[in-house]
Amino acid sequence: MKASQFFISTLKEAPADAEIASHKLMMRAGLIRKLGAGLYNYMPMGLRVIRKVEAIIRDELNKAGCVELVMPVVQPAELWQETGRFEKMGDELLRFKDRHDRDFVIQPTAEEVITDIARQELRSYRALPKNFYQIQTKFRDERRPRFGIMRGREFTMKDAYSFDRDVEAAGKSYDAMYAAYTRIFERLGLQFRAVAADTGAIGGDRSHEFQVIADTGEDAIVYCPTSDYAANIELAEAVSLLAERAAAAEACEKVATPGKSTCADVAALLGLPLSRTVKSLVLATDETNEAGEIVKSTVWLLLVRGDHDLNEVKAGKLQLADGSGLKAGFRFATEKEIVAHFGCKPGYLGPIGLKQPVKVIADRTVANMADWVCGANEEGFHIRGVNWGRDLPEPDLVADIRNVVEGDPSPDGQGVLAIQRGIEVGHVFYLGTKYSKAMDATFLDVDGKPKHFEMGCYGIGVTRILGAAIEQRHDERGILWPDAIAPFTVVICPVGYDRSDDVKQAADRLYADLVADGVDVILDDRGERPGAMFADWELIGVPHRVVLGDKGLKEGLAEYQGRGDAAATKVPVAELLATLRARLAQA
Amino acid sequence: MKASQFFISTLKEAPADAEIASHKLMMRAGLIRKLGAGLYNYMPMGLRVIRKVEAIIRDELNKAGCVELVMPVVQPAELWQETGRFEKMGDELLRFKDRHDRDFVIQPTAEEVITDIARQELRSYRALPKNFYQIQTKFRDERRPRFGIMRGREFTMKDAYSFDRDVEAAGKSYDAMYAAYTRIFERLGLQFRAVAADTGAIGGDRSHEFQVIADTGEDAIVYCPTSDYAANIELAEAVSLLAERAAAAEACEKVATPGKSTCADVAALLGLPLSRTVKSLVLATDETNEAGEIVKSTVWLLLVRGDHDLNEVKAGKLQLADGSGLKAGFRFATEKEIVAHFGCKPGYLGPIGLKQPVKVIADRTVANMADWVCGANEEGFHIRGVNWGRDLPEPDLVADIRNVVEGDPSPDGQGVLAIQRGIEVGHVFYLGTKYSKAMDATFLDVDGKPKHFEMGCYGIGVTRILGAAIEQRHDERGILWPDAIAPFTVVICPVGYDRSDDVKQAADRLYADLVADGVDVILDDRGERPGAMFADWELIGVPHRVVLGDKGLKEGLAEYQGRGDAAATKVPVAELLATLRARLAQA
Repeated sequence: MKASQFFISTLKEAPADAEIASHKLMMRAGLIRKLGAGLYNYMPMGLRVIRKVEAIIRDELNKAGCVELVMPVVQPAELWQETGRFEKMGDELLRFKDRHDRDFVIQPTAEEVITDIARQELRSYRALPKNFYQIQTKFRDERRPRFGIMRGREFTMKDAYSFDRDVEAAGKSYDAMYAAYTRIFERLGLQFRAVAADTGAIGGDRSHEFQVIADTGEDAIVYCPTSDYAANIELAEAVSLLAERAAAAEACEKVATPGKSTCADVAALLGLPLSRTVKSLVLATDETNEAGEIVKSTVWLLLVRGDHDLNEVKAGKLQLADGSGLKAGFRFATEKEIVAHFGCKPGYLGPIGLKQPVKVIADRTVANMADWVCGANEEGFHIRGVNWGRDLPEPDLVADIRNVVEGDPSPDGQGVLAIQRGIEVGHVFYLGTKYSKAMDATFLDVDGKPKHFEMGCYGIGVTRILGAAIEQRHDERGILWPDAIAPFTVVICPVGYDRSDDVKQAADRLYADLVADGVDVILDDRGERPGAMFADWELIGVPHRVVLGDKGLKEGLAEYQGRGDAAATKVPVAELLATLRARLAQA
Repeated sequence: MKASQFFISTLKEAPADAEIASHKLMMRAGLIRKLGAGLYNYMPMGLRVIRKVEAIIRDELNKAGCVELVMPVVQPAELWQETGRFEKMGDELLRFKDRHDRDFVIQPTAEEVITDIARQELRSYRALPKNFYQIQTKFRDERRPRFGIMRGREFTMKDAYSFDRDVEAAGKSYDAMYAAYTRIFERLGLQFRAVAADTGAIGGDRSHEFQVIADTGEDAIVYCPTSDYAANIELAEAVSLLAERAAAAEACEKVATPGKSTCADVAALLGLPLSRTVKSLVLATDETNEAGEIVKSTVWLLLVRGDHDLNEVKAGKLQLADGSGLKAGFRFATEKEIVAHFGCKPGYLGPIGLKQPVKVIADRTVANMADWVCGANEEGFHIRGVNWGRDLPEPDLVADIRNVVEGDPSPDGQGVLAIQRGIEVGHVFYLGTKYSKAMDATFLDVDGKPKHFEMGCYGIGVTRILGAAIEQRHDERGILWPDAIAPFTVVICPVGYDRSDDVKQAADRLYADLVADGVDVILDDRGERPGAMFADWELIGVPHRVVLGDKGLKEGLAEYQGRGDAAATKVPVAELLATLRARLAQA
C-alpha cells in the first residue's frame, strides 16, 4: 500500500472527552472518529486492525470446529419474551417498534436467536456437538458511554454458542473453547491471563474471563505467582487470615472517639493496628407482592475487618441455614433503616446493643478475631476489647464476604496472592440448560427421547481488543502494536521520495521485495517532512520502520528501527531485506 | 472442509411464503433461515457465498483506489436533519429513540455520515480525490418485505462515496467506479448489463444501474443488440414511430361503441389496427399552501397510442413553456375530477369536446398520427377519423411520455430495441453537490477558497447478489453457482466412505491434493445414501462434483460431473486431478 492511496489522518491533540490513553491514541492516530455518544466510525487505519483481529479469531475458531454464521442485528421481541429477557434486561437493551408497531431489539448478544436456530435445525443427537459463531455488530445502550470503543454503545463482538448432548460433552466444548481462546490471545501478541469468574445463577466452576493485563484495567485480577490460581477479584476466595480465634485478653470497654467515624481514624486514636478494627456494613433485602410493591424489608449487618473491603458479588450469594439471605438481591440500607435498627447514624455502628434484632454475618477473618474494636451505636463512641461469645453472641453466619488483598494466602495453599489490573476482552461461560429450557429447545437423544441442549456461550470483544492492546502497549509517542494486528507491519519512510531518484529507487525496490514476501508494508509517499512523517508512524504504532535518505544511501546505508527500540540501527542497504526478514520472523 | 465439520441443512420443501425460485432455493439449500418478516439468518452455507462476493468487491475497489472504513449501523438523527431526510424519507427509514430520548436511525445508506466525515477530514484539495466505501449492514423497513433476501429489511450493502474538486474530476471518479463495477460483475461470473438510469432531481447522464439478467427480474431493461445503447425502461427514450404526420384522409365521425371501453375492443369493433387508436390518461397536480393544505388542483390529459403505455417517470418530468407541468409530482385524477372536466366516466375519454379546459400533452408518436380514434367523452361512443389541427387544436406539448417497446428504433439510430428483464444489484450515481451543500461540506481549493465537494455514490447489494445469481442460474434440481462465488468449488462424494478403505483412501487423497492446490473443496463424509447426497449437492449448486465408489475404483475410474453437465463423465483416477484442474481453469 502506498500512503497516497490510503487515508491517514493524525491529530496533534486528543479531543477533550478522551479520558484514557487508548481513547486518546485511537483518536490521535486516526483509528476511529466519533459519530455520537458511544458511536464511532472505524476509519481505514482502525479497520485494518479490526480485520486482522477478526482473521485470527476466525482461523482459530474454524480450526476448533466452530461454524460461522450471521444473525440479524435487528431481532423480533418474541424470542426475547420467551426467555423473559425482553422485560428483565435494563435500558441497555435497545427496544424499538417497526412501522407496523411490532417490538424489536438490536442485539446485545444472540442467545435467543441461536437457540431458536438450534431447536429448528439440530433435531438429533447425531447433529451434536455443534458450535456456531458470528462476528457481528452489537448494541448496548450504555447510560454513560465512555473510554472510546472500550465502552461504546455499538461495537463488534464475536459470540459463539455450543450445543451438546450432556454436561460431560458440554465440558469438552468448554475446554476446547478455553484452549482456542488461549491460542487466539497468544497469536494477537498480547499479555493476558485467563481467570476464573463468577457464574452467577448458573453455578459451577465453568466461567473464565480472558483479561488483557494493563495498569489502567477496570478489573482486579488475582493470581498466585507460584501456582496456576487466577480469578477475578469478584470470585477470588478469601481465606481466614487467622487460623483460630485467640482467647480474650482485654476487657470490653466503651471509649470516646469523637469525630472518628472511620476504622483508620479510630485505630490511630487508640494506637491500635487497623487489623484490630471491624467495619459494620448494613444491607437490606426487600420482599415484594405480585404487584411488585415492597411488603417487607429486612436489615442485615455484615462485618469485615477494618482493612478489608466488602465483596458485593459474594454478599449477593449469602444464604443462612433457615433459607433467608441476600441471594434474591440486596441494597444498602437507608439512613432511616439504620437509625431504626441501630439507634445511631453510620460511622459508629456495631453489632452490640441493637434497638431491633438484626442478623449478623461475619467475614471468616472477623469470626476468628479477639479483642477487637467496633462502633458503639452511639455517635462519638466505639467499643474496644470486644470478644465473640463473651460480649456478643456468635455471628449468625460466618462466610467469605471480602475482597482478597495482595499477600493473602492463595486458596490452593500454593503461595500468596498478587493482584494485577486487567481489561476483560473474552469470556467463556457454561450456560447449562438455562436458555434451552426457557425456549424448550430439544433434540432427540439416542434413546429417542427429547432432551434439552446443554449450552455454552463464548464472547470476544473484537473492537475492545484494540483499546486493550493500546492500554497495554503504548508510550509517550504513541501505540506499540504487536506485529500480528498492526495496521501495517512495516513502514518505509523515504526522505525526499519526490526529489531524489536514489531514494525513490531504493524505496520502491524495498517495497516491491516486501510485497513479494507477502509483508503488509506501507510506503509513505506523501512528501511530509521527516519529523512529521516519523511522528505519524510512531503515533500510529507500526512495529518496523525503515528510513531511506540520500545521505545514508551514499554510504550504502539505511536505518531500521523497531517501534520499541530505543534508537535506530544503521543497516547496509544490501542487508536490509535480510534484516527485516529476521526481525519479522522474531515477532 | 469435511462436511461433518460443517453445517448442512437442506429441506425437501420450501416454506409456503417463498414465492420466487431464489427464495425457495436459498431456503431449501440452507443458505438462509427466516428470523422474522424480512429478517434472515445467514447460515454457514450462505455466509460462504456472501464472503466470496465481498472479497471480490473489496479486491476490485481497493485496486481502484477506494479506501474501506465502517460507519455505525445506528446513526444520530441530527445529521439526517441537516439534509432533511429525517423528515422527508418515508417509513422505510427506521427511526427510534435511545434511553435518553434522543432520536436515531438505523442506516439505510450513509450519505450524511460520510459527508460529515469528509467535511472534518478532507480539508484541502490535496486530499482529493477520495473514495470511501464500507460493506455494512443496512436496514429498510419495507412495508411488505418479500422474495427472501432480495427484498428483505436487513441486508448487506457495499456503499461507496467519492469526493472530488470539480465536475470534471467527479466524472473521472464516476467512470472509474463504472469500470470497477464492470470488473466486479464479470468476476462474479454473472450475465449482467449496465444500463443508463434516471437521475431524478440531480439531472445529467451519470446514473447507471448494473442489472443481472433474469427472466424473473423486476426491472425491464432496454438495449440495442447492434449498438452500445442500454437503459432502464424508465429512462429509455422513445422516438416517434411516425416520421411525419400524414394528411387527413377520413372525416371525423362519432361512432357507437357500446361496452367497448378499451382501445383493443374499439379497434376490433371498428376493424382498425390498435395503432390507429389513442389512449387518454388523466393526471392531476396539486398546489398546497404553507400548512400543506391543497389550495388548487389541475387536471392534465396525456395521450399515448393505444398499443403503448404511459411512462410515469417521464411524465413526472414534464414542463410546459409557461413553467407549469408535472415536475413537482402528480397523481392520477379522481373519477370526480374526470367527470367534472370530461363529462364522462373513464373508458370513453378523449381530447375533443371538454367541459372544462385541460392542457393536452401528446406522445411524440401520437402527435404525428392522422385519422385516429379516441373516446367521445360520452359513454358508449368514440370518435374516428380524428386529425390534429382540423378537429382539435395542436397539443399543448409534444413529448416522450411512453415506454419503449421491442422493435422500436434505438434512439442512437443504430438499430432496433430489445427488452430483457433484470435485477438491479448495483448503481453508480453522480450526486453533485446535493449533500455537500445541504451539510455545507467544503474543502479549501487551490485558490484558498472553500468549495463544496462534488460527490458520487455507488452501491452494490451484496446479499441481493445471491438472489439474483440464483434467479439467473438454477434448474429444477437446484442452484448453479458460478465457480467464483460457489459456497464450495468442488465436492467429493465418496460412496461408502465409512465402509470401504479404497473409497476412503481415494477420497482423502483427492481431498488433500485439492487442498494443496488451494481449491475450496468439501468432502462429504456424512455417510448419507448416494441419492440423498447427490441431491443435496445439486440443490446447493456446487459447480464440480467427483463421485468415488468401490465399483468404479476397481476399474480405476471415478466420475466427474459439472453442475451444468447433462451427465457424468468417467475419468481414470490417475487423471482425476488433471481433469479437475483443467475444468477449474476454464471457469
